[in-house]
Amino acid sequence: MASFGGIDLGGTKIQAAIVDEDNSVLGSARRPTPTSGGPPDVAREMVTALEDAAKAAETDPAGLAGVGVGSPGTVRGDEVTGARNLPGWEGSFALGPELERQLGCRVALGNDVRVATQAEFELGAGRMYRSLLGVFWGTGVGGGLILDGKPWLGRGGAGEIGHVVVEMEGALCTCGRRGCMEAYAGRAAMEAHAEYLHREKGRRTDLFKLMRERGRTRLTSGVWARALADGDKLAVHMLDRAVAALGAGVASVVNVLDVEAVLIGGGLGVRLGHPYAERITAAMLPHLFADYDPPRVHVAALGDLGGAIGASLLVREAEPDGAANGTSGAGAAVHPG
Amino acid sequence: MASFGGIDLGGTKIQAAIVDEDNSVLGSARRPTPTSGGPPDVAREMVTALEDAAKAAETDPAGLAGVGVGSPGTVRGDEVTGARNLPGWEGSFALGPELERQLGCRVALGNDVRVATQAEFELGAGRMYRSLLGVFWGTGVGGGLILDGKPWLGRGGAGEIGHVVVEMEGALCTCGRRGCMEAYAGRAAMEAHAEYLHREKGRRTDLFKLMRERGRTRLTSGVWARALADGDKLAVHMLDRAVAALGAGVASVVNVLDVEAVLIGGGLGVRLGHPYAERITAAMLPHLFADYDPPRVHVAALGDLGGAIGASLLVREAEPDGAANGTSGAGAAVHPG
Repeated sequence: MASFGGIDLGGTKIQAAIVDEDNSVLGSARRPTPTSGGPPDVAREMVTALEDAAKAAETDPAGLAGVGVGSPGTVRGDEVTGARNLPGWEGSFALGPELERQLGCRVALGNDVRVATQAEFELGAGRMYRSLLGVFWGTGVGGGLILDGKPWLGRGGAGEIGHVVVEMEGALCTCGRRGCMEAYAGRAAMEAHAEYLHREKGRRTDLFKLMRERGRTRLTSGVWARALADGDKLAVHMLDRAVAALGAGVASVVNVLDVEAVLIGGGLGVRLGHPYAERITAAMLPHLFADYDPPRVHVAALGDLGGAIGASLLVREAEPDGAANGTSGAGAAVHPG
Repeated sequence: MASFGGIDLGGTKIQAAIVDEDNSVLGSARRPTPTSGGPPDVAREMVTALEDAAKAAETDPAGLAGVGVGSPGTVRGDEVTGARNLPGWEGSFALGPELERQLGCRVALGNDVRVATQAEFELGAGRMYRSLLGVFWGTGVGGGLILDGKPWLGRGGAGEIGHVVVEMEGALCTCGRRGCMEAYAGRAAMEAHAEYLHREKGRRTDLFKLMRERGRTRLTSGVWARALADGDKLAVHMLDRAVAALGAGVASVVNVLDVEAVLIGGGLGVRLGHPYAERITAAMLPHLFADYDPPRVHVAALGDLGGAIGASLLVREAEPDGAANGTSGAGAAVHPG
């Protein structure tokens, strides 16, 4: 049985997984995303994460049938361009060849949010729907669309739900614009705002103490979850604000597209889980035009590994010899001789 | 050559047209939508409008191959439900049979915005695109979507772009919610707000004087256009506000869907025309994530008659005997005997 690698390249963490043809996870590993340096440093951490996952799966990267990568930024062929949440990655970097060289196997790149949406649609919480909106709530807020059973990409740039405007002259977003949903709900924007309120305005919080205690340099999802559990007032305030923005922004998209379901994924979405999916649903309701018939809202079922499992689908779909398609239809089988 | 009727039932006016198989307009007529009474009163005005259009086309309603109607509210079969912008139409009314009885020909109903979007896609400014967003800026603000060459309806309720949230705790909308794009840009909401500022806050304006001079009971698109041309300060302020909201709301949808084109139609959209389409485009830009590659923005090319022409397509598509489909493919022709 062939096995495949998947790497989810996030703004905060790099998650790698090794899966078999039935999408069972054979091993996984995680490393923090470098906060300085540039694309080659990020690539090196990706290789280490994949090697660790392969070790856990008792295999070797060179023995994999391929490795898929879900990346932020614009993915075109072998290159990733303008991945704002990664260090020094404003320009283009040929990530595919670099990883192939170091891993010794075939590598395919895809957009992180699309890869995760497709994984939830094929294998996760979206299995029973034909149209869905994936909301990946992490460092930024990404959106993935499945309409009529197929990914909707627009002219190539669809899904930027993080930059739906929820407040016309609102908070400054990490993208430089004002009032985007991500400016209130993205982990990076929340961290910048919490830091401002703490350091400049003297608002009390244990967020940064918790961060240091855990040996982190950022307010990770785990730090936020801990502070919320402790009732940290600033953390509670920031999450109230995030939930309100997510409610308004997601409801806006639902008003236009009327999808069957909304899936909440991403680092924060998965970490905060069902109670927050319920809070987001409640925050959507006052803005939903068809409030008598809201869409179903689920937490992404593949959890933290969804992005990596989804990335591994990239190399299976591209399999040229039909090995991965062996069960897809008896009529397609060819018997030589 | 068969001819067809189309009626665009708007919150402010009822527009009727008679077209031939090539979509040439043979005659048209317009009447104000009743502001009081109920569905039977509205139906009576629709019949009069269609009769006037037929007279202009030198024909008779009973001689038409059918009449299509684009209606606000929820259209299901022969019934229209919850058409908020029409008097006394909170419930359901069997509009189809009532019109058939009075007109003496077949009647088919469709949603006004979808009908107008389809008309622009097939015959108007959307002809060269495969994906587009129609923004119908009139009494309310409706949205129509064509994705990959087909209407996108979601679970039946897609397109409510007027209720995209542009300001989380913003202006009160006619739908009862807060901060919807329509609360700033819809003709009805603008009228209510202008009236409040004029009567309660003493803001000077000639809007209501112009309305009375024209024998109107509402601030029609023509009244707004006149006041703007006169430099009426309150009118200018209200339109600045509307354009800002349209820019934010339409950009939000473009960020998520990345459509090729945006079409601006509706009573105000067509009346204010190209200069305002350019203003809306400029107001979108600061909110567009892919601002280096904005969608094309056009004014609806079928103008005021787009809704009525689009409605007439409803009876052509439904033609059972193939008369209207005679040119659609030689292979489909059946020669009896």
